[in-house]
Amino acid sequence: MKKSLNEIAQHLGGRVSGDGEVLIGGLATLDDAGEGQLTFLANPKYAGKVATTRASGVLLPEGAEPHGRNAIFHANPYLAFAKLLTLFYVSAPAPAGVLPGAQVAEGVRMGADCTIHPGASVAPGVTLGNRVVLYPGVVLYPGVTLGDDVTLHANVSVRSGCRIGNRVTIHDGTVIGSDGFGYAPDGKNWYKIPQIGIVVIEDDVEIGSNTVIDRAALEVTRIRRGTKIDNLVQIAHNCIIGEDCMIVSQVGISGSTQVGNHVIMGGQVGVAGHLKIGDNVMLGAKSGVPGNVAPNQTVSGTPCIPHREWLKASGVFPKLPEMKKNLSTLEKRVAELEALVARLVPAEPEA
Amino acid sequence: MKKSLNEIAQHLGGRVSGDGEVLIGGLATLDDAGEGQLTFLANPKYAGKVATTRASGVLLPEGAEPHGRNAIFHANPYLAFAKLLTLFYVSAPAPAGVLPGAQVAEGVRMGADCTIHPGASVAPGVTLGNRVVLYPGVVLYPGVTLGDDVTLHANVSVRSGCRIGNRVTIHDGTVIGSDGFGYAPDGKNWYKIPQIGIVVIEDDVEIGSNTVIDRAALEVTRIRRGTKIDNLVQIAHNCIIGEDCMIVSQVGISGSTQVGNHVIMGGQVGVAGHLKIGDNVMLGAKSGVPGNVAPNQTVSGTPCIPHREWLKASGVFPKLPEMKKNLSTLEKRVAELEALVARLVPAEPEA
Amino acid sequence: MKKSLNEIAQHLGGRVSGDGEVLIGGLATLDDAGEGQLTFLANPKYAGKVATTRASGVLLPEGAEPHGRNAIFHANPYLAFAKLLTLFYVSAPAPAGVLPGAQVAEGVRMGADCTIHPGASVAPGVTLGNRVVLYPGVVLYPGVTLGDDVTLHANVSVRSGCRIGNRVTIHDGTVIGSDGFGYAPDGKNWYKIPQIGIVVIEDDVEIGSNTVIDRAALEVTRIRRGTKIDNLVQIAHNCIIGEDCMIVSQVGISGSTQVGNHVIMGGQVGVAGHLKIGDNVMLGAKSGVPGNVAPNQTVSGTPCIPHREWLKASGVFPKLPEMKKNLSTLEKRVAELEALVARLVPAEPEA
Repeated sequence: MKKSLNEIAQHLGGRVSGDGEVLIGGLATLDDAGEGQLTFLANPKYAGKVATTRASGVLLPEGAEPHGRNAIFHANPYLAFAKLLTLFYVSAPAPAGVLPGAQVAEGVRMGADCTIHPGASVAPGVTLGNRVVLYPGVVLYPGVTLGDDVTLHANVSVRSGCRIGNRVTIHDGTVIGSDGFGYAPDGKNWYKIPQIGIVVIEDDVEIGSNTVIDRAALEVTRIRRGTKIDNLVQIAHNCIIGEDCMIVSQVGISGSTQVGNHVIMGGQVGVAGHLKIGDNVMLGAKSGVPGNVAPNQTVSGTPCIPHREWLKASGVFPKLPEMKKNLSTLEKRVAELEALVARLVPAEPEA
Repeated sequence: MKKSLNEIAQHLGGRVSGDGEVLIGGLATLDDAGEGQLTFLANPKYAGKVATTRASGVLLPEGAEPHGRNAIFHANPYLAFAKLLTLFYVSAPAPAGVLPGAQVAEGVRMGADCTIHPGASVAPGVTLGNRVVLYPGVVLYPGVTLGDDVTLHANVSVRSGCRIGNRVTIHDGTVIGSDGFGYAPDGKNWYKIPQIGIVVIEDDVEIGSNTVIDRAALEVTRIRRGTKIDNLVQIAHNCIIGEDCMIVSQVGISGSTQVGNHVIMGGQVGVAGHLKIGDNVMLGAKSGVPGNVAPNQTVSGTPCIPHREWLKASGVFPKLPEMKKNLSTLEKRVAELEALVARLVPAEPEA
Repeated sequence: MKKSLNEIAQHLGGRVSGDGEVLIGGLATLDDAGEGQLTFLANPKYAGKVATTRASGVLLPEGAEPHGRNAIFHANPYLAFAKLLTLFYVSAPAPAGVLPGAQVAEGVRMGADCTIHPGASVAPGVTLGNRVVLYPGVVLYPGVTLGDDVTLHANVSVRSGCRIGNRVTIHDGTVIGSDGFGYAPDGKNWYKIPQIGIVVIEDDVEIGSNTVIDRAALEVTRIRRGTKIDNLVQIAHNCIIGEDCMIVSQVGISGSTQVGNHVIMGGQVGVAGHLKIGDNVMLGAKSGVPGNVAPNQTVSGTPCIPHREWLKASGVFPKLPEMKKNLSTLEKRVAELEALVARLVPAEPEA
C-alpha cells in the first residue's frame, strides 16, 4: 500500500509542508527510515535527527523545525504515528472458519466470520460473537461467552461461565477464571472454599501474556471497559478494576480490592486485599500498597507514601550509617558539654 | 437441590433458631442473598446487615443477634459456609473416558473413571490413578505418575518422571518439572548443569495458574502434603516445601531452600537459596529473605526483620529528610555551644 | 553405561588417585551416592563428608584430602561433575518426524531429524532447522524461523516472524513475541500502538518456563548469544539483552532497555525503561533500577545503590525509631544547654 503525504495528512488531520505528492509505503524510526518511508519526531531531544534522517517524510509537532524535509505537522505526532501504523500494518486475517484439528463441541453458538485454529478447544455451551479468532491451544470451558472481534492468542484458557466483551484481545498463555486462592482453616488443614463466581472482562480490554485473573468466590471479578493489562499480572478473586487503567507487568492485586478509573500501576506493584484505590491514582513501580489510596495521588515505596516524599527519603537512606555515626558523636559532644557546663553553673541550694 | 435449615444445621453441626423447615436452594453474600438463599456473617463489622438481608436464613457466630431471622448458630460460620458451598455447588463431572482428539500413548496405565479431554497429550510410560481429569492442552511427559482424584486444568505440563499424589488440583498453565536454573562458568560461557532430578507433589496439594516448580538437579523438589500454592509462583530446583503451607501469588523461592510446615508467605515474597525457614513462620508480603528464619517468627521487609520492628522503622522512614536536617542543625547548635563554652572555661595550663 | 575412573579422568582432564579401574555407572551427591557411583566436593564446608560417603569415587579440588577414597583431582570439580552429568544422562531423543496429531501447515520447511509431537501446531511460512523438537502444545505462528538443535517444550508459543537461533532451548509455556505494552493517550482512551517488530533469540540461549519476551514496536527485541533466562521473567519490547547474561526468575525489564554482556540479575529485580546497564553489572535480588548503571558495578535496593552501601544502610534501618527518639532527646538536651549557657554568657551591648 502506498499513500501520498497529502492523503496521509488528510487521514490524520495534519498540515503538509513541502512536497505533498511524495508516496509513502511504510513507517520506521528516525534512525532506520529510508526512501519511501515516513518517520516521526515525538521527543524534542532527537530534533537534530530530522535533518539527517533518510525518510521521505517526517511527522512533526507544531512549531518544530522541518530542516527542509517533507513534513506533516500534527498536534500529537506519536499518536498520529500509531494511527498510521494501524493504517499501514494492521489488518484482520481473513476469516477461515473452523479449521481441521480444532475441537468445537456440538451446539456451540458461533457468530459470522470466526476463525478457530487447529488445536483450539471449545466446550459445550460456549457462545462466540462475530469475527472471533481462537489460536491453537486456546481452551474455552463450558458456558464461556465471547463478544464480537475477540482475539485469543495461543494457549489462552477461559474457565467455565466467564464472559468476555467486544474488541477484547488476550495474549498467549493467559488464564481467565481459574479458582481464587481461598481456604479456611478447619483447625487442622486448609479447607478449600469453592470458587463459584466468574470473571467478566468488559469491552476494549487488552491483556498480555501469562497473566492470571481469578474467578470470584461468589460473585464477579470484573475488568472494566478500556483497561490494559500487561504480562504476568496477578488479579485475585473478587477484584473490580476500573475503566481505562494501565496495569504494567508483574503487578499483583490481592482479593476483593476495588481499583478506580484511569489508575496506572507500575511494574511489580503489589496491592493488598479489600482496599479501595481511587480514580487517577498512580502507583510507582515496585510499590507495596497496604491501605486505601485516595483519588489523584501518586505514591511509591513499601509501604507506599507520597511519591515526592519517597524520592526524598530514598535519597537520604544511603546516608543512614553516616547519620547514625554523627548522631552518636553528637551525643558524646553534648554529654561533654553538659559536664563542662555543670561545672560552670553555681550549685543550686538543696530543697 | 433444596434442603431445610434443619437438615443443613445437622450437616454442619449447628443450632437452629427460628423456622427450621424453611427450604434453602442456594448461597449468597449478605448483600446479594434473596428468597430461598442462605447467607453468613463472619466479620462482626457487618452485623447490622443481618437485619436487612433478604436471605431466608443466616449462618451466625455463637452469641450474635439474629434480628428475628431464621438462623443457624455455628462456632465458625465462614468454614461452615465453605462446607455448604461444597455441598451445594461442587460435584465431580461425570467421567467421560478418553475423548476424541485426546492423545494417549499406547501402554499408558489408567485407573477407573478418568476423563481425558480433546487436546490433552499423555506420553508413553505414564500412570494415571482413578478419577483423573486432564483438560485440553495438558501435556504429560514420559514416566509421569498421577494418583487418584487428580485434576489438571488446561495447558498444565508435567515433565518426565515427576510424581503427583492423590487429590491434587493444578490450575491452568502451570509447569511441573522444567529444568532448574543451573549453570557453571567454564571460564568463557555458562555450561548447563543437567537437571536429572524430579518433582514430587504430595497428597492434597493445590497449585494455581501459571506457576512453575522446577525439577531438582539430582534428587527431588518436593511439595509436602496439604500445601496450597497460588498463581505465578516460582519454586526453584531442590526446594522442599513443608506441609500445610500457604504460598501466595508471585512468591519466588530460590534453589535448595527448605521450608517448614504451616509457613505462610505473602504475595511477591522472595526467598534466597539454601535457607531454612522454620515451622509456622509468616513472611510479610513483598519481603526479601536473605537468611534462615527461626520457627514461629513473623518477618517483613528487605532484608526481612521482625514484623513489628519493620512496621516501626517503616513509619519513621518518610521522616528521614527531616531527621537529616534536624541532625545537621543540631550539629551547628552544638558547635556554637562548644565555642561559647570554650570561652567560658578557664584555659588549662599546658603540659 | 559404565566407565572406569581412569576413563572419566581422561574425559575431564583430571588426575586419578587410588584405584583407577573402579567402574562408575552413575552420579549422586555426597549424601546420596552409593556403590558404583561418583560424587563430588565443591564446597569446602562439606569436606568432612568425603570420609563417610559411600560413593565409589569422588571428584575433588586440587589439594583436598582424599581420605583414602578413589578420587579424581580436578581444578573445577563442580564444572567437571556437570560435564559428567551430561556424559551419563543427556542424550537427544531419537528423532520421530511429524507424529500423528501434530498440525504442520503445507509448505513448512523442515530440516533433518526433527520431531513434531502430537498437538504441536506449525503455521504456514515457518522454517525449522535440523534436529528441532517441538513438544505438544507448541504453537509457531506464521513466518517463524528456528535454527538447528532447537527444543521447544510444551505449550511454548512463538508469534509471527520471530527468529530463534541454534542450540536454543525454551521451557514450557514461555511466550516469544507477543505484543509489547504500548498505548498512546488520545485524550479519552488508550490508543493501541501496533507492535510490528519481532523478537530475535540468538544462539545458545536457554529460557525457562512461563517467561514472556515481547516483540518490538517497530524493530527488534534481541536476546544475544549465550544468555540464560529463568522462569516467569518479563522482557519488554525493544530490549536488547547482551551476551552470556544470567537473568534469574521473576525479573522484569521495561521497554527499550539495553543490557550489556555478562550481566547478572537476581530474582525479582525490576529495571525501568530506556536504560543502559553496563557490562558485568550485578543487580542484587529484588533491586529496583531507575537509572543507568555503569559497567562492573554491583548494586542493590530500590532505588538501587552500591551493594555495600545498601548492606550498611539496611543494617541501620531497623534502628530508625531509636535514632529518631535519640535525636529528639538530644534536641531537648541541647536546648537546655543553650538556656543554661545563655545565662552564663554576659549580655552583649545592643547595637
